[in-house]
Parts: sequence; C-alpha cells; structure tokens
Amino acid sequence: VLAVGVESPTNIALIKYWGKHPKYEHLLIPTKSSISFTIAGLHAKTLLKVESGKREITFHLNGKKIKETQSEFDYVRDFFDKISGTYKFANDYRYEISSENDFPTASGFASSAAGFSALALAFAKAMAKLDRLPELNERQLSVLARLGSGSAARSVPSRGGLVIWHRGFDNAGSEAEVSDLSYAETLYEPSYFDGLSVIYAKVESEREKKTKSRAGMRESVRSVYDYWQWVDYEEKTLLPAMLNAVREKDWVQMFKLTKQASNNFHAVCWRTDPPIIYLNDKSTEIISTIQPLAYAAYTFDAGPNAVVFALRRQAEDVEESLKAIVGKENTYRTEVGGGPKDAEL
Amino acid sequence: VLAVGVESPTNIALIKYWGKHPKYEHLLIPTKSSISFTIAGLHAKTLLKVESGKREITFHLNGKKIKETQSEFDYVRDFFDKISGTYKFANDYRYEISSENDFPTASGFASSAAGFSALALAFAKAMAKLDRLPELNERQLSVLARLGSGSAARSVPSRGGLVIWHRGFDNAGSEAEVSDLSYAETLYEPSYFDGLSVIYAKVESEREKKTKSRAGMRESVRSVYDYWQWVDYEEKTLLPAMLNAVREKDWVQMFKLTKQASNNFHAVCWRTDPPIIYLNDKSTEIISTIQPLAYAAYTFDAGPNAVVFALRRQAEDVEESLKAIVGKENTYRTEVGGGPKDAEL
Repeated sequence: VLAVGVESPTNIALIKYWGKHPKYEHLLIPTKSSISFTIAGLHAKTLLKVESGKREITFHLNGKKIKETQSEFDYVRDFFDKISGTYKFANDYRYEISSENDFPTASGFASSAAGFSALALAFAKAMAKLDRLPELNERQLSVLARLGSGSAARSVPSRGGLVIWHRGFDNAGSEAEVSDLSYAETLYEPSYFDGLSVIYAKVESEREKKTKSRAGMRESVRSVYDYWQWVDYEEKTLLPAMLNAVREKDWVQMFKLTKQASNNFHAVCWRTDPPIIYLNDKSTEIISTIQPLAYAAYTFDAGPNAVVFALRRQAEDVEESLKAIVGKENTYRTEVGGGPKDAEL
Repeated sequence: VLAVGVESPTNIALIKYWGKHPKYEHLLIPTKSSISFTIAGLHAKTLLKVESGKREITFHLNGKKIKETQSEFDYVRDFFDKISGTYKFANDYRYEISSENDFPTASGFASSAAGFSALALAFAKAMAKLDRLPELNERQLSVLARLGSGSAARSVPSRGGLVIWHRGFDNAGSEAEVSDLSYAETLYEPSYFDGLSVIYAKVESEREKKTKSRAGMRESVRSVYDYWQWVDYEEKTLLPAMLNAVREKDWVQMFKLTKQASNNFHAVCWRTDPPIIYLNDKSTEIISTIQPLAYAAYTFDAGPNAVVFALRRQAEDVEESLKAIVGKENTYRTEVGGGPKDAEL
C-alpha cells in the first residue's frame, strides 16, 4: 500500500465558471474563462492510499464514509472514469480516499474545488511514485483536476493568488488539444494582494444545495435565451476589464466589476428554465449593504453564502456589518492565499 | 366648476414594460411592446373637478391629501406638464383630483396604471364638455394616459381583456408620429378567457417600493450590458410566441411563457448596476410552488407581490397553496375584466 497526502486550498471566483461547452462537455471544458482567488486557511486535506488490484474505491469525507449511492461518490467515480481515458493504468488500483476540510466557520461553502484539486494532485503523486507517470507539470495537473470538478483546476497552481482558468477552445484543434489548452495558472501571487481581506459570511448551514451546480449549469446553457451573449460579454469585455484593474491595482474598479460579475451570474440563473434561485433575503441584505461601498465587493456562488473582498483597512468594519446580518459566529476573515502542498499523513 | 368621474381597472402585464426608448424618453415611448390583462375588481375611481384659472393642482389619494413635495404629486404634475405640450389649454384650469382604489385585499399592488388611466379619461371628458376637445377615440385616449404613466395606456381600452401596447417606433417618422403609434388596444375581450382565474398574493404591505419603477427602468436601460438583446428577444420571439399561444387558447404554453417573461424581467433588474432586487424569500417560495404547475403562472412586477394566473378549475387549489405561503387574508381571487367606465360622483 502506497499512501500520499496533499493539502489544497479552495478558491473563489471573481469571474464565474457556469457551463460546459456542449461540444466538449465530457472534458469539462468551460464555455468561458474564469478567474479566482486562492483562499488562505480554507483547505481540503486528502489522503490517498493505492494498492494494486481491480479498481475499487472507498471514500471518506470529513470522517464519514460516503456510500456508493451518494452524489459525492458519483463525482469521485466520474473522476476516475474520466482520467482512465488518458491514464489507462488508473484502473489497475484500489483507492482509499479520505478527505477533510479545515473550513473553520465556513462549512456551508463548496469544497469540491479544494477536494478534487487535492485528489488529482495525490493521484499524480502516487502514480509518479509507482513509476506509472512522470512528474506532471502544473499545467497538466490542473487539467487533471479539471476532470474531477471544473473549478478544481483553479486550486492547483502552486503559487495560488489570482488564477485564471483558460477556456482553451479558441484555437481549437483536436479534443486532446482543447483539453490541454483548458488549464489554470497563477497570474499574480498572493503578496500582490497584500492590502486585501477576504471575509466569508455564512447565510445557511445546510450542506445540500437546492440545485447542484453541475445540473444547474447544464440547464442554463440549454435554456437561457442569451447564454452565449453573457459568455461573450464576460470573455471579451468583463474579463479584460478585470485583468486591467488588477494590473493597475485599481481595487475600486476590481470590486465594482466583481459585484457586477456576481449579479450577472445570478441573472443567468434567474432566466434558466426553470429558474435557479440561489440567493435569499439575507444574501440580498448583504448585497444592499456592500453594493454602495467602493472599498468592498460581494460575490455569491451556487448558494446563498457570501464571500466579501475588502480593503484590509476597512475589513473590520465590513466584517462587523456582515456579523450584524448573519450573526457573530458566521463570519470568517482571511486573505488571498497560496497553492497546494504536500500534507502530513 | 365642472366635475367628471371615471372608474378604470388596473392591468397586469404578461410581457412587461421596463424602459423608455432613450430617444423618446420625454414621450414615455417604451423600448418594447407589452401585453397585459385588464383585471376585474381592482379599480381606481377618479373624480376630477376643473375650474377656470391659472393652473393649480390639488390631489387626494384614498382620502389623503398629497403634498406637493410627495413623489405621487410629482407624477401628477409631470402628467399635466406633458399633456400641455399637446393641449395648451390644459394650463387654463385649476384641477381638483380625488382618486380612490377599491383594491380589496391587494393594497400592496401598484395602482398608478389604473389611476392615470382614470385621470386621463376624466381630463378628456371634462375638456370635451368644455368644448376644448372633440371626443377623443380610444387610441388617442391611451396615448394621453401613456403620458401619465406608461402602463396606464393599457388600462384605457374600453373592452379590456388582453391588451397590447405597441411600442410604435418601428416605422418611426417624426416624434408626433411615434407618439401616435405607441398606443394600446384590446386584442381579445374578457370572455375569451372564461376558463381563467387571476389570484393576487400579497407578500408585503408597505406601499413604498425600494426602487421606483421610473428610476429603476432608466438605470436598466443605461447599465444592463444586454438590455437591447432582451428587448429584441421579447419583441421578436417571446411576444409572437405568446400571441400565438393565446390565439390557440393554449393556456399551458401561455403560462409557461408568462413565467419565463417574469423571470427574464427580474433577471434584467438583477444585472442593473446597482442591482434592483424586487423579490424576496416569499416571492421565491411562490415561484417554486407555481413553477412546476402546467396549469398556472406567476408574474411579478416591480415588487415582491405575486399575481398568479390559473385554469379556473384548479384555481381554488392554487389559491390554497398561496394562502399557505402568504397567509389566509393576503390572497384575492378575481378574473380578466373589462375596461374603464364613467363613475358616479
């Protein structure tokens, strides 16, 4: 039995991933590029044990055994199904996976990005030790993680910070080429964002989302009348504007665009048929509170919980106003962080 | 002193009006056509007294005197300012306006459409009696009401029922021509919708909207990145599909498109900068409840209250499920109704 451990951070997108390109759905190629911050202090730690034998998977998440009938298990099985296309030998092993999140207060936040990043890295590491794989480079690793959960690609780059996940199909040739081009990389290291804080505000504790992202985004691509208009706008207008703001350290502009991107994303969910409504009254209250602030931005993923970016010198005030909405025990302040690393077993 | 009375119904849009064409904003020309049902049992009754003299306005709404500093007064003053462009003699009178809504339970619902329809009709009637105007035809009357509040145009047609308000600028020549072409007319009389019920569900009682429609729609036209894409989609795809469904009495399809139009409208509000969020958790609960029903549709205007259309044979069940969400005393069941008429003084 070979055992490896990896700790991977989660990430939160400023420009969202929502939808796979219908032509490359099986490869988890996104319809558009996305960018995210790697988050300090929110990790998944994954221990992977591999043993020769006919493929078999056991999976523990936060100490609980996940049954083969549970949707979390489906994702893991899917991952191994997908990677065995590229790495046939992936089927020659039995896998024992235990993954733990160290999300202090923010347990309501999606952890699949961190989890699949850690799992992909652990797999590559184990297979390198077993001489089945050469050391993969970061780009290859992020492609590998992408096959588990799209946004996991953004948790892979070892320097963390501001990460872009390229959609990759713009100069598309073969499927293999597209897959290679759809990877994530660090644009700016965490130190570049020294003056910024990240505050999680947990609105609801239920782990179960009403609409799972994977199903939800498929419905959006299928039914939103101007889905590709949104894609085009974000790819050609919002993303370059955001990158320009970051380049100039114009945080006010970056915050403004972040709020806009979050709203545009939820407006896409709204006009999905049937509509997908992730935000609730508390989320709305957070929006109303943060919207007027030039020095802060909210962003919401596929759920009601908020992630708020703020200038560090105003972060305490911002956190106080969030506490007033979600309760004292439901905020968690952190910052932009680095990438994954090997973990103690 | 001459006194005239008019009672006008309110209307609720299946395809919404949200935004004035920037080129014709002063004429309240909408960016797209809209269609609505005239509603039975929800009226504004307006008594207008006119007397010769330098223009002066007093305005009572539901028995309360509206001060000149209140926004309701602004709208009335605006109306007289606008119509005096066409009818100069409008400035030769003193006006005493008293308007009452007989909205039984649904006091949280916008009444400006009914109110301005009644006021415009009363003005025309008074001016005809004073020999300052010939009898205006329905088309001219709806243009007149439009100048008070855009959607008031849809409450004017005397047969009520399903009304279309043409945007009018498609074959635009002069401004005067555009104004004449942007009028409302009945497409189907109320009897055509015999099998349908209309149920109001009041979610909140506050009269004051967070974002007023007039300001909100201006921001949407200005800031929504794909505003004109939405306009185009509704004008060229959704509206013809809706009219086709109505023509075929395909209520299931009409309901489906109504829900879609409501969601698309609120998605426009969402991506306005700053975002306009009219719906709350109760509204969302109504959406989740009604969305799966083929025999019912919800629609929301600029606020959290719902209007639900349903096949009459299922209306009682639908109303019960709405009562469970908003409380027993907060629903009101009615039907598609007729147009305005003279009122007792």
